[in-house]
Amino acid sequence: MKTIKQMIIDNQMEPMWNQSIIGIEKEGLRVKKDGTLAGTAHPAFLGNRSYHPYIQTDFSEVQLELITPPLHGNKSIQRWLAALHDVTVHAMHPEELIWPLSMPGSLPEEEAIPIARLDKVADVAYREYLAKEYGKNTQMQSGIHVNFEFAPEWIDALFEKQTELEDKTVFKSALYMKLARNFMRHRWLLTYLFGASPTVYKGFYDPHELVPVHYVRSLRNSHLGYVNSEEVVVSFDSVEAYVKDIERLVESKALSEEREFYSPIRMRGAEEVQGLQSKGISYVELRNFDLDPFHSFGITGETLDFVRLFAALMIWIDEGDKSATSKTGDDKNHLTAVERPTAESQFKTEGKSLLQEMREMIGYLTHPEKASAIVDWAEDLLDHPEKTLAAQIANGIEAAGDVTTFGLRLAAQHKQESTEKPYQLRGLTHLEMSTQLLIHDALQMGIKVKLIDEHDQFVRLKHGDHVEYVKNGNMTSKDTYISSLIMANKTVTKKILAEQGFYVPSGGEYQTAEAAQQHYDRYQNKAIVVKPKSTNYGVGISIFKQGASKEAFNQAVEIAFKEDNAILVEEFITGTEYRFFVVDDKVPGVLLRTPANVVGNGEATVRELVAVKNQDPLRGTNHRAPLEKIQLGDIEQLMLQQQGYTVDSVPEAGVTVYLRENSNVSTGGDSIDVTDEMDNSYKALAVQMTKAIEAKITGIDLIIPDLTHASTLKEPGYTVIEANFNPAMHMHAYVYKGKNRRLTIPILELLFPELKK
Amino acid sequence: MKTIKQMIIDNQMEPMWNQSIIGIEKEGLRVKKDGTLAGTAHPAFLGNRSYHPYIQTDFSEVQLELITPPLHGNKSIQRWLAALHDVTVHAMHPEELIWPLSMPGSLPEEEAIPIARLDKVADVAYREYLAKEYGKNTQMQSGIHVNFEFAPEWIDALFEKQTELEDKTVFKSALYMKLARNFMRHRWLLTYLFGASPTVYKGFYDPHELVPVHYVRSLRNSHLGYVNSEEVVVSFDSVEAYVKDIERLVESKALSEEREFYSPIRMRGAEEVQGLQSKGISYVELRNFDLDPFHSFGITGETLDFVRLFAALMIWIDEGDKSATSKTGDDKNHLTAVERPTAESQFKTEGKSLLQEMREMIGYLTHPEKASAIVDWAEDLLDHPEKTLAAQIANGIEAAGDVTTFGLRLAAQHKQESTEKPYQLRGLTHLEMSTQLLIHDALQMGIKVKLIDEHDQFVRLKHGDHVEYVKNGNMTSKDTYISSLIMANKTVTKKILAEQGFYVPSGGEYQTAEAAQQHYDRYQNKAIVVKPKSTNYGVGISIFKQGASKEAFNQAVEIAFKEDNAILVEEFITGTEYRFFVVDDKVPGVLLRTPANVVGNGEATVRELVAVKNQDPLRGTNHRAPLEKIQLGDIEQLMLQQQGYTVDSVPEAGVTVYLRENSNVSTGGDSIDVTDEMDNSYKALAVQMTKAIEAKITGIDLIIPDLTHASTLKEPGYTVIEANFNPAMHMHAYVYKGKNRRLTIPILELLFPELKK
Repeated sequence: MKTIKQMIIDNQMEPMWNQSIIGIEKEGLRVKKDGTLAGTAHPAFLGNRSYHPYIQTDFSEVQLELITPPLHGNKSIQRWLAALHDVTVHAMHPEELIWPLSMPGSLPEEEAIPIARLDKVADVAYREYLAKEYGKNTQMQSGIHVNFEFAPEWIDALFEKQTELEDKTVFKSALYMKLARNFMRHRWLLTYLFGASPTVYKGFYDPHELVPVHYVRSLRNSHLGYVNSEEVVVSFDSVEAYVKDIERLVESKALSEEREFYSPIRMRGAEEVQGLQSKGISYVELRNFDLDPFHSFGITGETLDFVRLFAALMIWIDEGDKSATSKTGDDKNHLTAVERPTAESQFKTEGKSLLQEMREMIGYLTHPEKASAIVDWAEDLLDHPEKTLAAQIANGIEAAGDVTTFGLRLAAQHKQESTEKPYQLRGLTHLEMSTQLLIHDALQMGIKVKLIDEHDQFVRLKHGDHVEYVKNGNMTSKDTYISSLIMANKTVTKKILAEQGFYVPSGGEYQTAEAAQQHYDRYQNKAIVVKPKSTNYGVGISIFKQGASKEAFNQAVEIAFKEDNAILVEEFITGTEYRFFVVDDKVPGVLLRTPANVVGNGEATVRELVAVKNQDPLRGTNHRAPLEKIQLGDIEQLMLQQQGYTVDSVPEAGVTVYLRENSNVSTGGDSIDVTDEMDNSYKALAVQMTKAIEAKITGIDLIIPDLTHASTLKEPGYTVIEANFNPAMHMHAYVYKGKNRRLTIPILELLFPELKK
Repeated sequence: MKTIKQMIIDNQMEPMWNQSIIGIEKEGLRVKKDGTLAGTAHPAFLGNRSYHPYIQTDFSEVQLELITPPLHGNKSIQRWLAALHDVTVHAMHPEELIWPLSMPGSLPEEEAIPIARLDKVADVAYREYLAKEYGKNTQMQSGIHVNFEFAPEWIDALFEKQTELEDKTVFKSALYMKLARNFMRHRWLLTYLFGASPTVYKGFYDPHELVPVHYVRSLRNSHLGYVNSEEVVVSFDSVEAYVKDIERLVESKALSEEREFYSPIRMRGAEEVQGLQSKGISYVELRNFDLDPFHSFGITGETLDFVRLFAALMIWIDEGDKSATSKTGDDKNHLTAVERPTAESQFKTEGKSLLQEMREMIGYLTHPEKASAIVDWAEDLLDHPEKTLAAQIANGIEAAGDVTTFGLRLAAQHKQESTEKPYQLRGLTHLEMSTQLLIHDALQMGIKVKLIDEHDQFVRLKHGDHVEYVKNGNMTSKDTYISSLIMANKTVTKKILAEQGFYVPSGGEYQTAEAAQQHYDRYQNKAIVVKPKSTNYGVGISIFKQGASKEAFNQAVEIAFKEDNAILVEEFITGTEYRFFVVDDKVPGVLLRTPANVVGNGEATVRELVAVKNQDPLRGTNHRAPLEKIQLGDIEQLMLQQQGYTVDSVPEAGVTVYLRENSNVSTGGDSIDVTDEMDNSYKALAVQMTKAIEAKITGIDLIIPDLTHASTLKEPGYTVIEANFNPAMHMHAYVYKGKNRRLTIPILELLFPELKK
């Protein structure tokens, strides 16, 4: 076969290094605040490990394994890792941390290390075998596996440029086998650049083990790491040889199962290696990466970029002598692994020459700039060993005093990043809050998540063969098309509710401003609300509790018509408005919203009180947080003025000063959960109303003078204002006062009743 | 009890005459073109009479009875009557007419008059009894019954102003009983004003009957009309007396059933008269109105307005002596009925005095103008008997030569109004065509229809207890909320269809014009389509079959962004685009749309050819017809110019000249039904795609090079462009070429499977 290099040069192709696909598996130990292993079980918030696609445990019950799907681009990878870390940390016991280093910070006696408590007997038995065979300590090392696949279009293009092989599967497998052989030869360079396990606490190793007394590059990648016994030798000469060797080793019990083959690279594409021959290799699993403790998710984008280039290089360069590959490569790698982190590599010249070939390869790119910078960076690390990860970690440990202090400090910092804005799902903060909440909970529950259209908040959820699409957090298959349209039309909603015997405000609908304005007489001296007919989010609404002057009425009509081509004028109902969140014929949340306000303390000015209230981390701007910061604009100042205040007034202690007339959370209002306080009769009514409009998910707004006084036939005690499709969920999830209500859970349980606990 | 008059005066109330509620029952004979009775059964298109709420038969199988629901305002009444006439006429045999007069135009021998073939044995038996008791001829007279109810709010207000009666039901019944007594006394005035049966064909009456030899006002309201035997005397003194009398008459077999009581007024509010005592009277049925043959629906708005005023007057005026009411009133009425139409009323002075009291009553209105005009009109008729309806009909018959010619001429004219624009449902032409079609078919099928929000095309359909809401003709409960959102998002639709193995065009989605314009290189020299991401109706789309210049591309991007905040650039697929209308996993319609065009004849200019084509009654403007008139604006002239034509060119015979690039029906394109020509494999694919996006009702656009060549795995032969929610139905219902497809029927059958024939 013509070399890849030649094919690329001859056909003026691009090496397409940056379009490869990567999936990450990242292990990490759950530890207590003192660095010892967590004593708790795998978090109960997380869906069962028998199906969880993203959050598993490796060897131990406390050894988390976070798994991303195969992804294009580092941005996606970092997003997924961020999201998976957030949902895991939020599910963990609040006192626990994820240990950031590959080597454990501290381990108890072997018998105290808990093997993962999995449902399948075979899975537990396998771990017990490993414990016996390798010792539990060895199994407690953690790392990152990079599942690497070349861009399929590139493979296709390469295949088409050659004539030797007729079968694309054979061609692809040959390519990946070449990658594997060269990877085994040259992986020492990755250990040099990214090795990150320079030391471990005393007592980790068997006292008889020959352990370096100084910091090294990577204990985990050394002969002391995670290695099979000497008799486990597998050929990478061909798929056939690879499969045959592994099968032979399993048969001879040198390996208990195929998965015990602890090679730094594994050929993937079939459930069992046997399948690789017929199906072909579709990707490789690179298993040699230590956790980067400085990075919140254990691996940086630069590392991933170098891996992409390195993998391309492994099929670009010649192989020389194909035999004895593993041995030489292994030796170089082990030697590199135990070098002092600050020492120059003993294979520096060879490293430089690999990077030189990389430069040559990059020369065939139209835009070589980014790739070139990555090679520069690697070259700099070769020249300056003190800049390598291992050296920096060693430095950090020295500065901290010991590895435990060093590790815990970083672990706490990573945790802080996950928890400081609990309502955010990092990596997906560009999505609406409700969608973030839904994805957060779906990831926790073990539902597969795919963003089909992130600009449109369109998500696909999947469990087994069961697929559900969700838009904007709660627009689903469970509501009908017409029920959403009924809710979108306030007149229709009111008519249907009134016909079914519910109490609605009286009023009129108008198609033109003139028509409404001609009816001013009807509304004169009455408490009224003027609002657009179809909008869902509280804009364009004017309220006149004492009746409106003709001028004010006309203006309110104009304002409402800016939002819609029809408006409603309704009687204003006295009482307090509550939002009933209804899902699946239940009411998991009732919310009271109060206008933006501060409570005086007799000392601070209104401006100061606002500033203090705005420090709440739940308050943000532009709908990026569950509550909005209170503004001090014209509207607020006018409102103050009407009450005899200015921003510099000092309200008396205990006095509530309102800065807004309207109670929208979006204008600085407070959200107060009253689910438990609300009399159940009103919740039952909200459910009945929801059924009347044939909906499953809605936000019903009721005005109720006394929430503790049950509704009866004689004294209904409520007026229904409207039913909202796509009702906000974030304002219930993180409230100003009261209990947070996780409404995304009942939504997910409605969609996936099979996952209901 | 204080008089109503006194209560209104004392309390400064308004008589609220115009807010009363009216429901109409209108009878009419189906006749052939020669005026003889139709020989056909009740139209099969109409739903079964065992449940049909609107279209029934009275005595005879050929005697239609059209029934409106109770309605506010004459506009609603005329709308309903128009709609019911249209759906009835469209369901009838094309050679049949509805006879417009109360007295039949011609009847066969009695035995040849078909009694209504109803399902219930008892209903048929009752009609057989009537035939024996009164003779079939008598039963073949037709009229209009006005079900009249005072505005409930007005009754409530009146009730609150008095203290004598504690029970509102009793109060209301007393009011209606007073109405009935005064109605019996003064109804002669209605006979004078609205009598419209001045004559009948020779041979209608028994030869022994004493029949006037001259024209009269109303045969039907005379002693020769529809009257019970002398022994049937019912008191209107009180509800109790009324109920007792009717029950006594039924018991003594003087009446076979309660419904045989042929009074000009009946008290209503309960299934059986017995119930009137407990439930109270809620409305009255006024049965004395002859058909007005000059009006398409048998009764004018002026008549209804006078009826409203008259009913109010009947409770306003004093009664004098309560006893002997019926006799005196009956005599006056019968005397009036047989007066010559052109003669002055013998009770003119009494009539004037009634109208004077009406004027007094109107004096208490804030806006008396309209009511006053109606009284003026009635007064004018009293002064000028030649202007009465009876006089005009007599005149018309004289002019026509005979009653048959007169009646058939009007009948044909009424039918023409119902059929000239078959795609319209008169009375509801302000609605979208699809909604008109849906309501049309629902009314035919006997589904109850209510417009909940006509500005928003929101309809409620009801059959028995089964309620369905429909918006815009086919947005229903059968689609899910999310399926409509999937269809609204073209990127999501494409992703889902592609994932499930369907062929979609390749391309990109862009959130900003800059992003799209930067990708120009990708699309250069390729056939592409630039379109907004989410719109459903073909606006903002640019097609470049030969690739776009950078300038044209940039402009197309800007145009698409005017319609949406995201756009798609897709490869342009060669072939013909077909619209597959999918409903309930079937494809009842496949449509080909061709751009606006004319075919030359070697003589006419393009302008002339367009003018001829535009004469098609199916072509209208502004979406008021199934096809649009072809314009000759700038775009069309440019298109002509590109082909070497001007509007004054004379295209050769047989040559098709296109006036548009785009094939939208809305820009003058032609619709061609190809449902039968389309290979079934594509229909099956469209159904599979519909299932993939979890929809029930959609319009799938496929590009297919050869519709006769079956799609196979190896040669799929199609590309799917998009799935449309709320797909247009009118363009399939009335096509330019091919078979009309009534897609509203499968929609209604999907909604009401219990009505499937």
